[in-house]
Amino acid sequence: MCSESSNPSELCAHREDAVLSTMQDVPLTVTRILNHGTTIHGSSHVTTWTGGSEPHRRSYREIGERVAQLAHGLRGDLGVTGDERVATLMWNNAEHVEAYYAIPCMGAVLHTLNLRLPVEQLVFIVNHAADRVVIVNGSLLPLLAPLLPHLPTVEHVVVSGPGDRSVLDGVAAQVHDYEELLAGKPTVYDWPELDERSAAAMCYTSGTTGEPKGVVYSHRSIYLHSMQVNMAESMGVTDADTSLVVVPQFHVNAWGLPHAVLMTGVNMLMPDRFLQPGPLAEMIETERPTHAAAVPTIWQGLLAELTAKPRDVSSLTQVTIGGAACPPSLMEAFDSLGMRVCHAWGMTETSPLGTVARPPAHAVGTDAEFGYRLTQGRFPAGVEARLRGPDGEFLPWDGESAGELEVRGPWIAGAYYGGASGEPQRPADKFSEDGWLKTGDVGVIGPDGFLTLTDRAKDVIKSGGEWISSVELENALMAHPEVAEAAVVAVPDEKWGERPLATVVLRDGATADYAALKEFLAGRIARWQLPERWAVVPSVPKTSVGKFDKKVIRRQYADGELQVTELR
Amino acid sequence: MCSESSNPSELCAHREDAVLSTMQDVPLTVTRILNHGTTIHGSSHVTTWTGGSEPHRRSYREIGERVAQLAHGLRGDLGVTGDERVATLMWNNAEHVEAYYAIPCMGAVLHTLNLRLPVEQLVFIVNHAADRVVIVNGSLLPLLAPLLPHLPTVEHVVVSGPGDRSVLDGVAAQVHDYEELLAGKPTVYDWPELDERSAAAMCYTSGTTGEPKGVVYSHRSIYLHSMQVNMAESMGVTDADTSLVVVPQFHVNAWGLPHAVLMTGVNMLMPDRFLQPGPLAEMIETERPTHAAAVPTIWQGLLAELTAKPRDVSSLTQVTIGGAACPPSLMEAFDSLGMRVCHAWGMTETSPLGTVARPPAHAVGTDAEFGYRLTQGRFPAGVEARLRGPDGEFLPWDGESAGELEVRGPWIAGAYYGGASGEPQRPADKFSEDGWLKTGDVGVIGPDGFLTLTDRAKDVIKSGGEWISSVELENALMAHPEVAEAAVVAVPDEKWGERPLATVVLRDGATADYAALKEFLAGRIARWQLPERWAVVPSVPKTSVGKFDKKVIRRQYADGELQVTELR
Repeated sequence: MCSESSNPSELCAHREDAVLSTMQDVPLTVTRILNHGTTIHGSSHVTTWTGGSEPHRRSYREIGERVAQLAHGLRGDLGVTGDERVATLMWNNAEHVEAYYAIPCMGAVLHTLNLRLPVEQLVFIVNHAADRVVIVNGSLLPLLAPLLPHLPTVEHVVVSGPGDRSVLDGVAAQVHDYEELLAGKPTVYDWPELDERSAAAMCYTSGTTGEPKGVVYSHRSIYLHSMQVNMAESMGVTDADTSLVVVPQFHVNAWGLPHAVLMTGVNMLMPDRFLQPGPLAEMIETERPTHAAAVPTIWQGLLAELTAKPRDVSSLTQVTIGGAACPPSLMEAFDSLGMRVCHAWGMTETSPLGTVARPPAHAVGTDAEFGYRLTQGRFPAGVEARLRGPDGEFLPWDGESAGELEVRGPWIAGAYYGGASGEPQRPADKFSEDGWLKTGDVGVIGPDGFLTLTDRAKDVIKSGGEWISSVELENALMAHPEVAEAAVVAVPDEKWGERPLATVVLRDGATADYAALKEFLAGRIARWQLPERWAVVPSVPKTSVGKFDKKVIRRQYADGELQVTELR
Repeated sequence: MCSESSNPSELCAHREDAVLSTMQDVPLTVTRILNHGTTIHGSSHVTTWTGGSEPHRRSYREIGERVAQLAHGLRGDLGVTGDERVATLMWNNAEHVEAYYAIPCMGAVLHTLNLRLPVEQLVFIVNHAADRVVIVNGSLLPLLAPLLPHLPTVEHVVVSGPGDRSVLDGVAAQVHDYEELLAGKPTVYDWPELDERSAAAMCYTSGTTGEPKGVVYSHRSIYLHSMQVNMAESMGVTDADTSLVVVPQFHVNAWGLPHAVLMTGVNMLMPDRFLQPGPLAEMIETERPTHAAAVPTIWQGLLAELTAKPRDVSSLTQVTIGGAACPPSLMEAFDSLGMRVCHAWGMTETSPLGTVARPPAHAVGTDAEFGYRLTQGRFPAGVEARLRGPDGEFLPWDGESAGELEVRGPWIAGAYYGGASGEPQRPADKFSEDGWLKTGDVGVIGPDGFLTLTDRAKDVIKSGGEWISSVELENALMAHPEVAEAAVVAVPDEKWGERPLATVVLRDGATADYAALKEFLAGRIARWQLPERWAVVPSVPKTSVGKFDKKVIRRQYADGELQVTELR
C-alpha cells in the first residue's frame, strides 16, 4: 500500500495492492542460527578427536561465547571490517566451527581453503578472493608457509592447535595464536542485522578445467539449506543425533552440516586430521554417532578396517554418501553391518543438497527399494530440475530420456564470483539463458522425480542429435573377460558430428579381436551406439585423483598418436 | 556491486560490497510447493471421508490439474484479478485443498472463513476483507444464505458438494457449481512469478475482545513455515506418512498442514464434516493415518469412543495437540493406546507453529520426559522468544521468572490487516515498540528453551511490580475438598496497584470458612500472593465456549454486586 502521491505522473508500484502481508520481515541469517543453537541447544556439543588421549568436547554454549571472542579478535586486533574475506585452512574441529559463525555473523566472508588443491590453485584462489586473514591449523603450516610469499593480500595468519610454528619465522604477515586472540575478549558480541542476501561464505570449485571458480553463499541460502538438511525427508537429524562429519569443512561447507546442526541441536563428532580407517572405526565405537557423512572412498577403507577388526558400529544407522556414487557392493556390505547408506547428490554450486535417495514409501520393503537407493535420489521442493537434450530441447521425466541436468533454487548458484573488482561471471556453458545452473551431469529422471546420473556432459558423445553414454560403453567393455580397462571418448565424425572411439587395455596374454569385442557389446548396447573406431593402449591416462583423463586421449587421437582400427 | 554513477552525489548503497552472493534469487512461493507436490509427489493423495460409502481419493497429480482448472474458472468466468479476496466457507476436504493453492498461486488472496464464528463476526470479516467470491460447501449453505444480503462485496458464490441449493434462490450474487466451474478448463495454468512477500492467505482471530483482527500470511511465511513443519524436530512427516487433519482448514490454515504435506508428499486424510468420535475412530481404523492434528476436546471425545468400542488405532503414532493444553490424564490414556501425543503451541498470529514439545534427547526414557511433554514445547530456530515482566523488563530463562511471551520470526505477524483502504494496524497491546508480537500468554521458559504457559496476560494480577498467577490460585483453591469451582481476578488496590479477589463456589452443604481456605492456600502458594478479598458465588460466570468470564466477575465487583469479605 502506498500513500497518495502529489504528482499523479509518479506511478506507485504497489498502487493496486489492497492486501499487504502482515508478517514480520525477519532476515534469514547465519546469526539467527548461531543465537538459537548456542542458547536453546546450548548443552549440545562438538567433540573433536585428538588422536590419543580423551577427545575434546565443547558445548554449543561455550562455542557461542568463543564465537563472540573470535569476532572481537578479528575486529579489534586484526581490524577486519565490512565484507573482507577471512580464509580457513583447517581440518574439521571445534575451532573451525567457531570460524564458520564468527566470520559471517560479523558481516565478513568465510573462505574455506581446500587443502587438497594443487598449491598453484591455492595461491590463485587466495589472491582471487583477496583474503586478508588466514586461520590455519598448526599441522597445516608446512603447506601454508611456502605459499605466503605469493599471497600479498594476507596480512594476518592465526594459528590454531599443535604444529611447528617456526616455519613462519620471517614471513611478512603478522602471526597470531588462536587462543591468545580469544583470551580475555567479551563473550558476547553485538552482531549487526545483516541483509539475508549478503555474502556469508565462499568455496571455489576444484577447477578440473580452467581456473577454480568461486561460489558465494548468502546468509539466506545457508539458512534455507540448513532447514532442508533437517527436514525428515533429507537427513532429518535432531538433538537425539550425533553426526560424524567426515566430509571436510573445506568441501562445500561439510555439506552444510555445521550450520544445520546448530539449528536443531544435533551433536557433532569431528575427526580433525584423523581420517584413516582405524581412528574412524575407533571414534564410531566409542562416541557412538547416529549419523555420518562422507565420500565413498572413506567408507571403502572403513569397511576393510571393520572386516579386519570388527567393532561395534551399531549406533550408526544413517550414513549419507555423496561426492560420487556408492558401489552397490559397498552399500550391501554396510547394510549387513546395520549401517544404512543413503545416497545424496550435489555440487559446490548447489550448497550442496540437490537430491537425497530415500526410497519412496511405496517401494520400502519391496524388490524396488534397493534400486531406488542406487539412484542419486529425489529433489526436494527447494530444487527445481529439468533435463535438456543435445540440442537444448527439454526432455520428459520418463526414466529413459537422457539429458543434461539443469537446476534452479534458492541455494543454487546463478553465477561465479568475479573477483574484488569484477562483475559476477555467468559463462554460457555453466548457466542457461534463463539463469538455471547447468550441472554438467547427464542422466535420467523418473516420473516420481528420482534422478539417475550416468555421465559427465563433457564425456558423452553427441551423435546425430542423440547422446551416447561413454560410461555405459566403458562398463560394458570392461565386463569382457579379456579387457582390463576401457575408456571411450568422442571423436569428430563427418556424418554424425561425433562418434565414440573405444580405447582398451587388454589383460596379459590377450590379443585384440575388435570384431569380437564389438559383437560382445552388441548384446548389451543399442547397435547404433557401437564404436566404429578402436585402439588398444598400454594404459588409460589418468588425472592426479585417478580418474580417466579423457582430455589426453582426445589429444592423442587428434595428434595421430593412437593406432586406430576402423570397423564399420 | 554497482556501476560508476555519472553523478557523484548519488550514493550507491552497495559501493563498499566487494563480494556479492552468487546464489540464484528464487522467490519462496506457494506456487513452488504446488509445482513440486503435484509432480514429484504426484502419486500421493488426499482422502476425503464421505460418511457412508467409499472415502473419496484424489492424487496430488489430479489435485494439480484441478487447481489449474479452478484458477481458470476464477480468472476467466468470475474475473478474479490482482490480489482480490476469495473466501472459503468449507470443511476439510480435497476441494478446500484445491482452493488453498489456486487462489494464492494466481496472485489472489485466500480468506478462510471460520464457520464457528458468531454470524455478526462472519459478516464483519467478509466485509472487512471485501471478499468478492465465496466458495462454500453445500452443507454450509444454511449458514451462508441468510448472511448474503449483508455481504455487498460478494458477487459470486461457488457451491461444492451436496446440499440444498434452493436456499440461494433470489440472492443477488451469481451462483456457480464448483464442478461445472472446473469442467473443460485447461489442466495447466501459466502461474505468475510472485514476490515472496506478497499476500497469499488471511485468517481473522476470533476476537474474544473487540472486533476480529486479520492476519495476512505471505508466500514467504507459508513456505518457511512448511519447511519447519517438515523438520524432524517438529512434525517430521514424509511421504511414508498419512496425516489425519482434524484441525479445521479455517483455523490457522489447519496449522499449515495442507501446505506442508505437498512439500514432502505426505498423504492427507480429511474428515470433511464428520468430526464426531465415531466416524473419527472409523477413519483411523480403516485408513490408518500415522499422524493427526487436533485440539484436545476432539481427542477427549475420541478416547471415550475408543473406551466404549475399541478399534485398531495402532497406526497413529504421532498426535499433534494444540489450541489448548492437553490434560496429563488424556496424554497418559493415549500413551497406553500407543498413540503418542505431542504438544504444540501457537496462535493465528504465529502461522501457528511456535513451539513443539518433543522432549530433549537427554530426558527421553527418564522421569523427566513426561514433564517435558506437558510443557508447551521448545522454540525452533525460526521463532525467537523473550519474556517481559509487569514493567516491561526482560526476564531470564530460569524456569521460574514468569512474564508475557513475545515472539519474532519470519512467520510471525507484525501487524493486523487494516482493511482495503487502511494502513496495517499495530495496536500497542499486541505489538511491542520494536515490532515483536505480544502473545498475551504468560509463562516461564527453562534454560533449554522449553516454554510453560500458565495464564493469559489479561488474567494475571499485577501486584507491586510482580505478577500473581490467577490460574495457579484457582487450581490450588479447587484442590480443596469443599470447593467446587474457583475464579480469581485482579481488583484495584490502593497500595499494590492490583490484588487478587477469590470467588469460590462451594460444594453442597459446605460453609464458607475463608480463614481456613487461606490457610490451605498458604501451604501451596507464596504468602504475599494470597488473596485478601473473598466472595462465595453460586456459580462462576462463563463464556459461550465454557471458559471463565472474568470480565463479568470484575464488573460484578466494581458494581458492588458481590458480597466481599476482607481478610488481612
